[in-house]
Amino acid sequence: MGIGHAREHAPADGRTRGPGSGEEGAHLDRAAVERAGRRLADRVWRTPVLRCDQLDARSGARLWLKAENLQRGGSFKVRGALLAVEHLAGSGSRGVIAQSTGNHAIAVALAARQHGLPAIVVLPSDAPPTKIHRIREAGAEVMTAGTLLADRVAAVAQLRELHGYDVIDPYQNPHVVAGQGTATAELIDQAAQVGVHLDAVVVPVGGGSAIAGACLAVEGRGVSVVGAEPQAVPALTTALRTQGPVTVAAGHTIADGLRPDRIGDLPFALAHRVVSAVVTVSEEAIADALRAAFLHARLVIEPAAATALAAALEHASRYGRDVGVLLSGGNVEPSLAASLLTGQETPAPHTTAA
Amino acid sequence: MGIGHAREHAPADGRTRGPGSGEEGAHLDRAAVERAGRRLADRVWRTPVLRCDQLDARSGARLWLKAENLQRGGSFKVRGALLAVEHLAGSGSRGVIAQSTGNHAIAVALAARQHGLPAIVVLPSDAPPTKIHRIREAGAEVMTAGTLLADRVAAVAQLRELHGYDVIDPYQNPHVVAGQGTATAELIDQAAQVGVHLDAVVVPVGGGSAIAGACLAVEGRGVSVVGAEPQAVPALTTALRTQGPVTVAAGHTIADGLRPDRIGDLPFALAHRVVSAVVTVSEEAIADALRAAFLHARLVIEPAAATALAAALEHASRYGRDVGVLLSGGNVEPSLAASLLTGQETPAPHTTAA
Repeated sequence: MGIGHAREHAPADGRTRGPGSGEEGAHLDRAAVERAGRRLADRVWRTPVLRCDQLDARSGARLWLKAENLQRGGSFKVRGALLAVEHLAGSGSRGVIAQSTGNHAIAVALAARQHGLPAIVVLPSDAPPTKIHRIREAGAEVMTAGTLLADRVAAVAQLRELHGYDVIDPYQNPHVVAGQGTATAELIDQAAQVGVHLDAVVVPVGGGSAIAGACLAVEGRGVSVVGAEPQAVPALTTALRTQGPVTVAAGHTIADGLRPDRIGDLPFALAHRVVSAVVTVSEEAIADALRAAFLHARLVIEPAAATALAAALEHASRYGRDVGVLLSGGNVEPSLAASLLTGQETPAPHTTAA
Repeated sequence: MGIGHAREHAPADGRTRGPGSGEEGAHLDRAAVERAGRRLADRVWRTPVLRCDQLDARSGARLWLKAENLQRGGSFKVRGALLAVEHLAGSGSRGVIAQSTGNHAIAVALAARQHGLPAIVVLPSDAPPTKIHRIREAGAEVMTAGTLLADRVAAVAQLRELHGYDVIDPYQNPHVVAGQGTATAELIDQAAQVGVHLDAVVVPVGGGSAIAGACLAVEGRGVSVVGAEPQAVPALTTALRTQGPVTVAAGHTIADGLRPDRIGDLPFALAHRVVSAVVTVSEEAIADALRAAFLHARLVIEPAAATALAAALEHASRYGRDVGVLLSGGNVEPSLAASLLTGQETPAPHTTAA
């Protein structure tokens, strides 16, 4: 409780891409995740790890579903945001800025309100209305900028100049990454509490904070990390092939949370060292997994979470008998969910060729 | 484990309405529920008790949501069915028959398959296709008979005559009632494990097994029981007024699980003695609660469960600070869920006059 994170925090040094993203990850390790977990206890829900007979049967493995769709703010991102905002509030910050595809923004808005700090968030112009509504409800100011990560990063730089607020990078900030890692750490612990050693965890990959956190959480625990990303935006797959983050030409994906077209430097470095596989998932498989979660697990999950579930449904038996799945969030647009449920949504054909 | 239920089991004596429903409830008590809980451990999921900030804010209380929508078979009814079928299988039964609005039938089908017994279930002709599909998937034979409880009871009597199978009554069978009570008992225990004494539990009322089980589970625990039923089918409200079960003129309700137009004798007797309030819920409120569960709690619940949630959202603050809600099941028709999510479903106007 209240243990400082000074070791993991270093001032921006310009070596990484995004404004405010330059906090070094050098001291990030499993112990940092465990400290983050202690600080978050009683502030986030310890979400359940759920089982589902039908999904097990489909996957050929026992799936352990970490239901972060049931988390405060509807996604695991509140974990990292709470720690990052708390740190800034304790350093005399006058306000915070975040760019996000949605969930990090919701999380930062909620955390800023808790600490009485103003918050401005920058979203892509095609962000789901429900996510925008939730951010405004939490009291943050919403701006939109293009549809690409670079557009949002540029807008953040201007806003930072204008307001003098602090930027909380969604993929690089060490508090964010350590905080996001607590979801995977809890998943491993909760399985262990019922006597189960997870062979692997499957996590969705957008900008990379989930997989970065997972890479830290599994240190020394003998658990593999598998990333899942849309075929339409293979940012980590491409980065691993080219040995470094690159901006990919992004196709359309319903997984709005996984639209960042470039993996963060810190997530890349961790993933490059730790992950055992990255799976790309078709739009049909994402839609099908979202439906399966609804019909069989009775869970509302967003397409980003469905991407991880889809990867697990298809490949889990290759990873072992007991496989954890990070159901990262549940902020799905009701109209999208409705059309997926009634089979009216046909994913764009160009995403299914691979 | 393996403790016999012989004491609660007595042969049919014709004193109650349904065929096979005459098993006496005289020895049903909290201890019976606790024995049932021990027998069910490791055979049903210990479903989580969930919290949701937005639903708390709306209700003015802290709601503790027992997520039996996440249970095997998608509802709490697998609890009672497993015990009842196990008992019959141990007595040399050649097969089982059940009538149900859907969830008891799914549960009996799953339980019968586990014990290698054939099962025939009788549903109303307007039963949701998804429930019928799940029953067939579980290997049971499905028949339909009218839309009223009396129609199904008559069909069950004929089938019993024809096949010589044993009938598992959904509202009167003591194993069923004790089993259903374990859901409420777990809810109270799980809250207690985090230091919370529940002031009340809100349960949906159809034929009455949930409220009967709840009445047993709260014995000596200082927890009030509140029933919630659709305004369109006020079977318990009417029975309490007339001092005995009566068949009510049922209007249309989307809560297919709560369509039985008469409360069982045993549930009535227990409810009459124990419940502190019965709330009737409009169709709009049921639809609204189902949407709220989706949007805020990220849970897929069926309209029966939404009826209990609706009652809690409107009245929980009158019952105390900490109020449990039995989210009884999650077998909602995808097309209904989709239309509720997009606001296309307007409940029948005649149900909203009260």
